[in-house]
Parts: sequence; structure tokens; C-alpha cells
Amino acid sequence: MKNDIRMRGFVKRHDIDQVLDILKKRLGKTDKIKINFGDSFGFVLAEDIVSDINVPSFRKSTMDGYALRAKYTFGASLTNMLELKMIGTQHVGENKDFVLGDNECVRIKTGASIPKNADAVLMAEYTEKIKNRIKITGSVSPGKNVSQIGEDVKKGEKIFKKYHRIRPQDIGVLASIRENKIDVYRKPTIALIVTGDEIVDLNKKPEKGKIVDSISPMLKALAKKYGYELKFKGILKDSKKIIKEKITECNEDIILVTGATSVGETDIIPYIVSEIGELIVHGITMRPGSPMGLGFIKNKPIFLLPGHPVAAMICFDRFVYSALLIMQNLKPDLPYKKVKGILTRKVASALGRTDFARVKFANGKIQPIRISGSSILTTMTKSDGFIIIDKNTEGLDEESKVEVYLYE
Amino acid sequence: MKNDIRMRGFVKRHDIDQVLDILKKRLGKTDKIKINFGDSFGFVLAEDIVSDINVPSFRKSTMDGYALRAKYTFGASLTNMLELKMIGTQHVGENKDFVLGDNECVRIKTGASIPKNADAVLMAEYTEKIKNRIKITGSVSPGKNVSQIGEDVKKGEKIFKKYHRIRPQDIGVLASIRENKIDVYRKPTIALIVTGDEIVDLNKKPEKGKIVDSISPMLKALAKKYGYELKFKGILKDSKKIIKEKITECNEDIILVTGATSVGETDIIPYIVSEIGELIVHGITMRPGSPMGLGFIKNKPIFLLPGHPVAAMICFDRFVYSALLIMQNLKPDLPYKKVKGILTRKVASALGRTDFARVKFANGKIQPIRISGSSILTTMTKSDGFIIIDKNTEGLDEESKVEVYLYE
Repeated sequence: MKNDIRMRGFVKRHDIDQVLDILKKRLGKTDKIKINFGDSFGFVLAEDIVSDINVPSFRKSTMDGYALRAKYTFGASLTNMLELKMIGTQHVGENKDFVLGDNECVRIKTGASIPKNADAVLMAEYTEKIKNRIKITGSVSPGKNVSQIGEDVKKGEKIFKKYHRIRPQDIGVLASIRENKIDVYRKPTIALIVTGDEIVDLNKKPEKGKIVDSISPMLKALAKKYGYELKFKGILKDSKKIIKEKITECNEDIILVTGATSVGETDIIPYIVSEIGELIVHGITMRPGSPMGLGFIKNKPIFLLPGHPVAAMICFDRFVYSALLIMQNLKPDLPYKKVKGILTRKVASALGRTDFARVKFANGKIQPIRISGSSILTTMTKSDGFIIIDKNTEGLDEESKVEVYLYE
Repeated sequence: MKNDIRMRGFVKRHDIDQVLDILKKRLGKTDKIKINFGDSFGFVLAEDIVSDINVPSFRKSTMDGYALRAKYTFGASLTNMLELKMIGTQHVGENKDFVLGDNECVRIKTGASIPKNADAVLMAEYTEKIKNRIKITGSVSPGKNVSQIGEDVKKGEKIFKKYHRIRPQDIGVLASIRENKIDVYRKPTIALIVTGDEIVDLNKKPEKGKIVDSISPMLKALAKKYGYELKFKGILKDSKKIIKEKITECNEDIILVTGATSVGETDIIPYIVSEIGELIVHGITMRPGSPMGLGFIKNKPIFLLPGHPVAAMICFDRFVYSALLIMQNLKPDLPYKKVKGILTRKVASALGRTDFARVKFANGKIQPIRISGSSILTTMTKSDGFIIIDKNTEGLDEESKVEVYLYE
């Protein structure tokens, strides 16, 4: 196997979609865990959520006014004021058991419980109060201004389906149906190993020929942005023994290794993966990111990320983030907002290769920054986002309509 | 003042833009703090970042091949192979001081330092190696496959301007220019006080007339989603004394109080704010959210959020999130992705009022869910997002083109 890889180079490059298909087929789901609903933002449900209760659980007023029986208001107007007798006040949170007689009403606040035999609430605006005598200048039909039992959520109703990802408002509903503990899929964890004899820690001043590690802080921030934890395992020398040991030690769900992923004789990571697991993908039809690899070690995915920061970030967004989503039963979409725009000038691209071209906004149009040179990290910081030039497209003309994925 | 508010109701409602203008005028900026660049994701720079160094700091190869002087390759081809002498190998991270003589070259790896007097790199593909004699079948021009000093970042170059919000790729650049500590604006903190005699903690079974607190877990998750910390100060009874004391105790930058914000006699929060500070806004031309208020206590903003969860969330997104951004010198945009679509049916709205109407996707079109009833929390969970119906628009017709802000 060793010599095979070394001699053939990237013999069979995979397309982006093929890599995503492999991920969909091969990745297992993370296990189910029980967590407090209040901590569940961003987690994916591992169960259907069915409400045990009605919300609201009692009939309540949606207005400030008088709870009454609608029929005693019929015909009331400014020129034909009717009169009701107020028998008490129901504040919010109170539970006085009023029973209305004929032509009786109860002063009621928004959100307060409605007397058993009341069927509507007349807004305070249509009344005049003289001690406990209420003159009314308007009428209501039955049900008016009353929130019925189960109007928001019915007992037995399925509120969320399995695989739904929890949003803040969902947490509001989980609270209101008093769902304290819920089953979710554990979020996958990520290990990152940076390799390269030339790479030194930021705190060491690099000698000539060496560079500081910019990938680990960047990928750590990227993982955090998406709500995941990335554990940095250190910068390793290009030693097969050391790297193999470190890979074997990782307990995380996904392993990332950067550097030494290409086809040169010092590109040792593909061999290591072949030896202790399977190397499925080596080389993809994408730029930047073409030397990326994907393997599995005991069914755990290992991504061979390019050592160039720009390529590493794009591969993380396109493949590692997708793996995180797939392992939680989510669709592997790119994590960026999109806007449409018009290109200021043509962008070249090769047939059979998908290009991620960095662009910026210039006078309301989309200006390509540079698509060659995956090592130029400032193309990422000077750009507002990127466009994707499909593998079936041989570049884009000036004035083409494009969709920009926004870096924010 | 007390009776004024009570009697006049919402005499002068503010428009959304007026409230945003007040926030822009009145809010101070948070103080500057120094943090590790690696922890700076999502923070806003309080200084320009200027690089002290060149990146790369040495000339390096962008390819695997041979470092040489270009002129000795001129004319080389498959039919006219030229020969060079290899005088050694430069691996990545190494710093051997090679000096090339005439017709000499050095084996070089991607990322390795180029000999002083080499001016190009010939890719390994165009060579044949027999011991230390290298036959070349192609030519290169000076500068080819060489990354020049300062090509990515020049010494003295301004990399980021003050007020730039740090993204993951920016952290990569901060690492590469070895910027360890940076000045950023502290993220504003938020205090939340929930009021209402009817509201009980989730862990208590609510008696008839009471409801569980769904707002605090929801707003906590919302703040977390946006990268901020919300400190929940508890559920308070509708007691002026207790609420006033709690508000006065809050050390956070922004105070949120939910409930009792309207114009009824039990709506005590507006009076409290008027007493211990200024109540600037009370009532806005927006639905849901119309009873919202905004005041300042010792120049600190206090938001009076409606007690209805849906209205509270929309007010948080539109105003509280904007305040967070403004306090860090950012533009107060809504935090949602947008997509365009066509309405399935007409939506009514009143002139002079901005409506946030929840919608969902149905057969590729946009279906309005319900725009009345701010207490129906499930309209938020059943919807895919919302559309905004401007105050100058009297509803939208069937088949109207709309922009949907996506809940995700």
C-alpha cells in the first residue's frame, strides 16, 4: 500500500458530492443522552416530544376588562348602555371560584383565569364603572378575548419530531409544557493534531524556515462558532511513530490531522491511516483543498486536512462540519448566509474541479479576490465571503449572477 | 408622573426606527479590555491591528521540486533536456545556508526556505534524478513557485481596523503575525427580571391560574446563541418595593424586565422606571411587542419587555440585540438569514404599525401562520421564520414577493 500511494499520486480524486455520500453512508450517529431542556439549545432531539398537558391549562383572558356571559352584552352601544353587576375581581395568578348569575360580571386582568360560566371578556374601554355597577357600551360574541384550554398546545399533541434541532423559542415551549429532561444526540467531539517540522507554537519566536501554528487557534474558533468542542492535541514532528501513537490515543468522535497529507515522500499521514485503518479518499476535485484525505479508523472518521490555513478552513466548513451534522441526523449544509450579486470581472476555473473563490463587495458588486494560492490567509480576511464555481462550469463571465456565502 | 402614565395609556407610541435612534444616541460603549487572540472570536476590536512582521518572513517554495536560478532552465524541454547539479536538500523547517553555483540546484519541499541566490522553483514533475544529477524537461521564469517575503502580510500593514468583529479566519491571521494580546470591547452583560404573580418556576407544579416561566430559559438560550451572557435574577411578585430593589441591585450593562409593562393599574414597571430613572419609550408601533418600554437608569438601558413570550422574543431580537451591537460599535442588524419567496395568501396589517408575521414554507411558497395573539408560543415553533410588514404598508396581497427571516 505504501508504495502504491507514493507512486500513483492522487490517482483517483473524489468529487465533493462523493465525499459527502461516503460520510452519509459510513458515519454512525452519536449516542442519546438526557439533558436539561434549558441547556438544549443547538442539540438535536433523539425523541418525539409529546405534551402531557394543555397550554393554557385554564381558560384565561387575553384582555383587561370584564368576564361575563356574552348574551348579556347583546345590543349594548353608546346610545343603548346596558348595566351589569360586578361581583369581584380576578387578578392574574388568582383562582377565586366565581360563579356568575344573570347580568353579572367579574373584573378581570390579562392572563387571569375566567369564571367557570363566563364565556367572553369585554374590554375595559367599552365600560364605565360606578362602584360595582358596570355600564357597558359595546357587545361581544361568545369566546371573544378568551384563550381556550389547549389553544396553544393540546394534551397529547406532538410538539417536536425526533431530529429537530432546538432553537431558543423551542426552549420556551418545552418550559411551557413542563418538559424538564429531554433526549438528544450527544454533540460529536473533535480532536486536532497539527503536524510539521516547520511549525512552532505562537509563544516561541520562529527561526528562519519555521512558521507559527495559525491553524489550531483558527479551527478552534471555527468549531466554537458552530457550537462544538475541538480539543487541540499539539504540534507533532513529522515522525510516523509519534503521529501514529497520538492518533491512536484520541478518544474524540472525529480526528483532524493537518499537514503531510499530499503525495510527496514526506507526506506520511496517508500511510499511517492506511496502516491503522482505511484511507478512502485521497485527493479531491476542489480548490483550495485538493490534497484532502478521508479515512476511517475503527469506524471513526479521520480527516487529513491540508497544512495551508485557507484550504484547512474550507475543508473544515465543507466536510468536517458536514460530518458533525450527519452524526446528529442533520442535513450537511454549508454554515453561511447567502446573498446574490453580480461579478465585476470573469473568474477562471477548470472543468471537473469545484472552486471556492474568495470575493468582496465593491460598489454593490461582487469582486473576486484571488483563487490561486491557498497559503495566502489574508485572502480570507480581506474577503466578505466566497462563491462556489461548480465542477461543470469552466469559469464565470463578467456580470455573471452569483451567490455569495458570507463570512461574518 | 404616575397618574399621567396611568391615565393617558400609550399616548405617544414610538416607531421601531425612533427606538433604534434613541439607542444609537444614548448608549455608551463598553470599556476596552485586553484578551488573548485565541479567545477573541466574536469580539469587536478596540484598536487597529498593524503587523510588526512580514508573513512569510522568509522566501519559501510553494511547490515540491528544485530551487534554482531560472536562467539555467531556459530552453529546457522534453527534447532538449538540460542538466543541473543537486547540492543538497532543504526540508521544511530547515535553515541550511545553501549558496548556488552556476547550474546548481537544491532539492526543496513545499514550504521550505529558498537558498539566498535561488530565484525560482522547478516542479519535481519536470525533472529526472540520477544520483545528484538532475535532468530537467521544462523551464521556469524568475519568481515562479516562490512565495516572497511579506507576500501575505507586509510589515507595517494594517490588517484589521478598529471596530472589526473577529471571525475564525481572523484568528488565523492574528496567529501568523504573532499578535498575542489584543484590545477589544467587553461584551455587554444582560440581567433579566421576570415579574408576575401568576408565574411560577418550572419545577413547581402550577396551580390553576398560574403558569410556568417560559421566558427566562428562552431568553437565556437566545442570548447564548448570539454569544452573550444573560443573568437570570429570578421571578418576582408584582411588588413595587421588591422589583425596585432588584433593579437597583443589577450590575449588568443592560436590564430586562418582563411583565407588568402595559398601561393597566397593575402595570407597575413603567412607574418604577420613571421614579428611579427616565422612561423614554412606552408603547411602540409594532406587533407583537406593542407594550414594550425603554428607559435609562443612570445611563444604563432598561427594557420593559412584554410578558408574552412571543412578543418578548421579537423585542429581544429587534431591540435588545441591537443595543448589544451598538454598545460594541456594530450595526444593529437583525440576526437572521433571509430568503425570498411568494406569499400563499394575503396578510392584513394596519397602516402605521410594523408587523412581524410568522410564516412557514408550504410547497415552495410562504404561508402566513397567524399574526394575532402574541401569547401563542407555538406560532414561533411551528414557523420557519417571519416576514416584516412595514408600517407604511396596509397588508400584503396573495402572491406578494416577501423576504423571510429564517428561524434556525
